[in-house]
Amino acid sequence: MKKRLPEIIRTEKNLRKLRERLLDFHPYDIAGIIPKLKPEERHKLYASLTNKELADIFSYLEGKESVLLFHELDSTKGAAILEEMDVDDAVDLLQELDEERAGEYLELVEDERREDLRYLAGQESTAVGSLMTTNFIKIEADCDVKEAMRTLIREAGETEVIDPLYITRDDKLVGILDLKELIIARSPLKVGEIMKTNIVYSDMDEDLEIAAGKIRDYGLSALPVLDGETLVGIITIDDAMDVISDEAEYNYGSLAAVGGDIDEKVNVFVSLRKRLPWLLGLLLLSFVTASVIGGFDEIIKQATILVFFQSLILDMVGNVSTQTLGVTISGISRGELEDRRDVRTNISRELRISLINSAALALLTFAVALVFLAIRKHHALWEVSLILSVSMFFSVNISSFVGLITPIVFKKIGFDPAVASGPLITTISDIFAVFIYYGFAALLIHLSGGMA
Amino acid sequence: MKKRLPEIIRTEKNLRKLRERLLDFHPYDIAGIIPKLKPEERHKLYASLTNKELADIFSYLEGKESVLLFHELDSTKGAAILEEMDVDDAVDLLQELDEERAGEYLELVEDERREDLRYLAGQESTAVGSLMTTNFIKIEADCDVKEAMRTLIREAGETEVIDPLYITRDDKLVGILDLKELIIARSPLKVGEIMKTNIVYSDMDEDLEIAAGKIRDYGLSALPVLDGETLVGIITIDDAMDVISDEAEYNYGSLAAVGGDIDEKVNVFVSLRKRLPWLLGLLLLSFVTASVIGGFDEIIKQATILVFFQSLILDMVGNVSTQTLGVTISGISRGELEDRRDVRTNISRELRISLINSAALALLTFAVALVFLAIRKHHALWEVSLILSVSMFFSVNISSFVGLITPIVFKKIGFDPAVASGPLITTISDIFAVFIYYGFAALLIHLSGGMA
Repeated sequence: MKKRLPEIIRTEKNLRKLRERLLDFHPYDIAGIIPKLKPEERHKLYASLTNKELADIFSYLEGKESVLLFHELDSTKGAAILEEMDVDDAVDLLQELDEERAGEYLELVEDERREDLRYLAGQESTAVGSLMTTNFIKIEADCDVKEAMRTLIREAGETEVIDPLYITRDDKLVGILDLKELIIARSPLKVGEIMKTNIVYSDMDEDLEIAAGKIRDYGLSALPVLDGETLVGIITIDDAMDVISDEAEYNYGSLAAVGGDIDEKVNVFVSLRKRLPWLLGLLLLSFVTASVIGGFDEIIKQATILVFFQSLILDMVGNVSTQTLGVTISGISRGELEDRRDVRTNISRELRISLINSAALALLTFAVALVFLAIRKHHALWEVSLILSVSMFFSVNISSFVGLITPIVFKKIGFDPAVASGPLITTISDIFAVFIYYGFAALLIHLSGGMA
Repeated sequence: MKKRLPEIIRTEKNLRKLRERLLDFHPYDIAGIIPKLKPEERHKLYASLTNKELADIFSYLEGKESVLLFHELDSTKGAAILEEMDVDDAVDLLQELDEERAGEYLELVEDERREDLRYLAGQESTAVGSLMTTNFIKIEADCDVKEAMRTLIREAGETEVIDPLYITRDDKLVGILDLKELIIARSPLKVGEIMKTNIVYSDMDEDLEIAAGKIRDYGLSALPVLDGETLVGIITIDDAMDVISDEAEYNYGSLAAVGGDIDEKVNVFVSLRKRLPWLLGLLLLSFVTASVIGGFDEIIKQATILVFFQSLILDMVGNVSTQTLGVTISGISRGELEDRRDVRTNISRELRISLINSAALALLTFAVALVFLAIRKHHALWEVSLILSVSMFFSVNISSFVGLITPIVFKKIGFDPAVASGPLITTISDIFAVFIYYGFAALLIHLSGGMA
């Protein structure tokens, strides 16, 4: 069915019939093909649908795309569509437009809505304020349920979120009322008597991710946002879902060092611009490792056997640092590493894991290296195995610590902790590890007066 | 406030007062402290709250914990709570119980509910059927809006999801009606005249992740599940959010090789059991790399300078394979690599990126290596730089391919693609890379008759 959508728009001449046929498609699917249409086909589509229907479609378009398309509309039509959009979607769109253009549209919308839009557009982009909507239903606590039902019927048409209802006293939030409870309630009850008072809420300046996490964990359909005790807006679950989904993708992309978001569908050059700088930077950092190894020139010439196992140490260092990094970043994004005590608990927990891991790895390394060297009939098999397993033990612990502490420090100094990607941490840990490995070997060889 | 919850339960003697004070807390928060209470305190809590209130609390408990607590209740109370729970939460709980016990409870619940529970519990666990609820409102398409409103009022109290309403003809789904539209509609309209017909739905056996993705992308509050054309259940947005959140965490944890889920809050030994086997397995695989390097013994002795740059090649190999792996797994979990054509497009796209990346890396490597070697006054700086940059070019391309193809092959043969963790792919790519690096060097040295 979806494949036929552009064809329908191209071939259907009668605008009224076109609308009827378009309404069989979900606005999301129509939004998906709009950018692929020719301008004249788009104008046909705009002419056939109502402003409300177009508003639904535009709310699914994102970023630059929505702006480009919006510029094709004349200002009156644009303002009419803005007026019909959910207020949070309208704000998103306005924020993408250049200021002058946004101002033009704002002039054309109704006073009350303009005020809402201005207020919401002024919120900080990482805080809940930026994602909230002001379009929900507030009811005074001492209102009778019958009267509340009348308010609902009167306002429902113009309101984005009708469930739950927010119960206030002088604009202060005092309770939440599920629509279901109102529907089954009988007069002369007051809404204050049937509302729930165990309110979960978010402060204005709370992080988006924390607020979205509350919606997920508490299983809410919307989260009220308070400024002091005053109810100023709500965050809905579908927006929270986007936040969680985007954050997960961002963290995943960062761990994989593809520069934040995963870029499956964008073109090759956009991908390159995101990934290549990472790679070039990491390459330069790797030359530091090469210099460190170069510094142990003499040792390597004396004991080339050490070279065979270098990758073994560096591989494990990369593995453990990626593990601890993953656990730490994931803890940070779930808001579990907010206070000093949590951080300390986490560090001590990870270090205990690391001690046991490294001991196990050192033992296994020792055993397998012995066998490996015995097969090759190496004369210094005990010494080499010892150097290897001791270095393994220390390198693994240090790199666990690097993976653990880097994102925490990044966060502390105001960097995005997710920037500490797996490859970055691995390369840094490598530098420590080659120091330990060849350094320890040099020490031992020096003490014993030559080995290989 | 939360810190006082256990204290309130411990000290408040009057059950009625206890209930009043408990109702100030969200069921999620009460669920959070229940496992930490003593059995006699839990019994006090159970005695003070209604079955509906307890059902809300139990629906937030998960897995083994909920079962342990449920076993403390006598069967009648347990059944009463099951009866009050949302049907999908009740199914989750029943599936955790052993069969005999589950059967006991099922005997005690109402006939109609028992049938629903049995039906839902029988669904495959990775398909939408396992997460759907049957507790929503169906209305016949030719029902008058006034009559529909009456149905709503009658059923709302017993129904989990009241918005949207599902419009059917002989159990076949023909439309979706937002509650808002019903509230503002006036008789003599029929629901069939005001419903939306652009239905987004899921088939019974569709993957949970795909269904959850639809709910997110289309911005739905619930997704109807069809068996043929018959409406058999719905998936709600809060369940979809859990699916997306869990999947993201699983993928992230897999990329970091911590064995699937991230394990922040569990104890050290559970974490170890998940992470250590990965590390030990990877260690053994690294010995393969060590053997390969060992095979180039003679070359290394002749040209120890090559050793300085080995980590450089292996680092980059790890970085690019992790990048392509991340992009590929993320594409698979978004359902973007379902058919052969998508896979082919993605492979060709990633390979083009890889060619450009590797060329850039090879050039930079050549330049920096020249400088590096010139500073060290190495006599064969051109040869070594050439070996290095040519190996870089080929190794990077091969490891991109490894990161790209492994999860696709895993998926094809029915493995979980996310099992292909960053460290695994890196270690495999390393083996190819050392072959290429020392192999190419050996070839060149052989051809030129000695170098270092």
